[in-house]
Amino acid sequence: MAKIKKIDHVALVVGDIETALSFWRDALGLKLEHIQDAPREKSAIAFLPVGGVEVELVQPTSDDSGIAKYLEKRGPGMHHICLEVDDIEAMLTQLKEKDVQLIHKEPVLGDGGKKYAFIHPKAAFGVLVELYELP
Amino acid sequence: MAKIKKIDHVALVVGDIETALSFWRDALGLKLEHIQDAPREKSAIAFLPVGGVEVELVQPTSDDSGIAKYLEKRGPGMHHICLEVDDIEAMLTQLKEKDVQLIHKEPVLGDGGKKYAFIHPKAAFGVLVELYELP
Repeated sequence: MAKIKKIDHVALVVGDIETALSFWRDALGLKLEHIQDAPREKSAIAFLPVGGVEVELVQPTSDDSGIAKYLEKRGPGMHHICLEVDDIEAMLTQLKEKDVQLIHKEPVLGDGGKKYAFIHPKAAFGVLVELYELP
Repeated sequence: MAKIKKIDHVALVVGDIETALSFWRDALGLKLEHIQDAPREKSAIAFLPVGGVEVELVQPTSDDSGIAKYLEKRGPGMHHICLEVDDIEAMLTQLKEKDVQLIHKEPVLGDGGKKYAFIHPKAAFGVLVELYELP
């Protein structure tokens, strides 16, 4: 049976990373590791690691992205949590056997060789859950 | 300067813990540590620790609780993230100096001697943030 190892990150949607850093970095004191462009998701992401988990601030960089639509509809706030799994193929098989509704039925190959897949929030009681297998 | 040590937990609002466990425990395979009644918050909480962070499923046990109203208004989903801090008094002072809007201006004494305070979601760009100092 595939195993969840840890929470990899918690992703927060923000309208503007620099403005949101006034709270997360300047007031709370979290360290900004770096800001990265994510053209595939039409967004920019700020990484603030704390105790082995990343807080990620995700800002849409295009009005037609999924993140931009989410922000327009729901406003800024928590977007998803990402769980690191030891074997993503085995986990997706396990979830399909239990009829868990998936956004990605097969892993998607992401930057740096990591594999990811999203579980549908309907299956996770309103929570958007991402699965990661790191290379 | 007070320091955030880690994410202590991510709290998810659910209508019914037993039903939600069909996903979080039975499909994903997270371990249910225990379910605890939280009469102060008029809720029950299931604790599913993973990699040093707790996933908490919070179910209202009374229709007039804050959690019940949240659930009615927004549906199930992510509710708040809790950050462990080394010195909560110093952190609250630091936040007040930066005009961060707080729900609790002073720490509240919780179960087992832990101290907690909530930051207003307006200050945290739509995210409800709890601070913990463990005894």
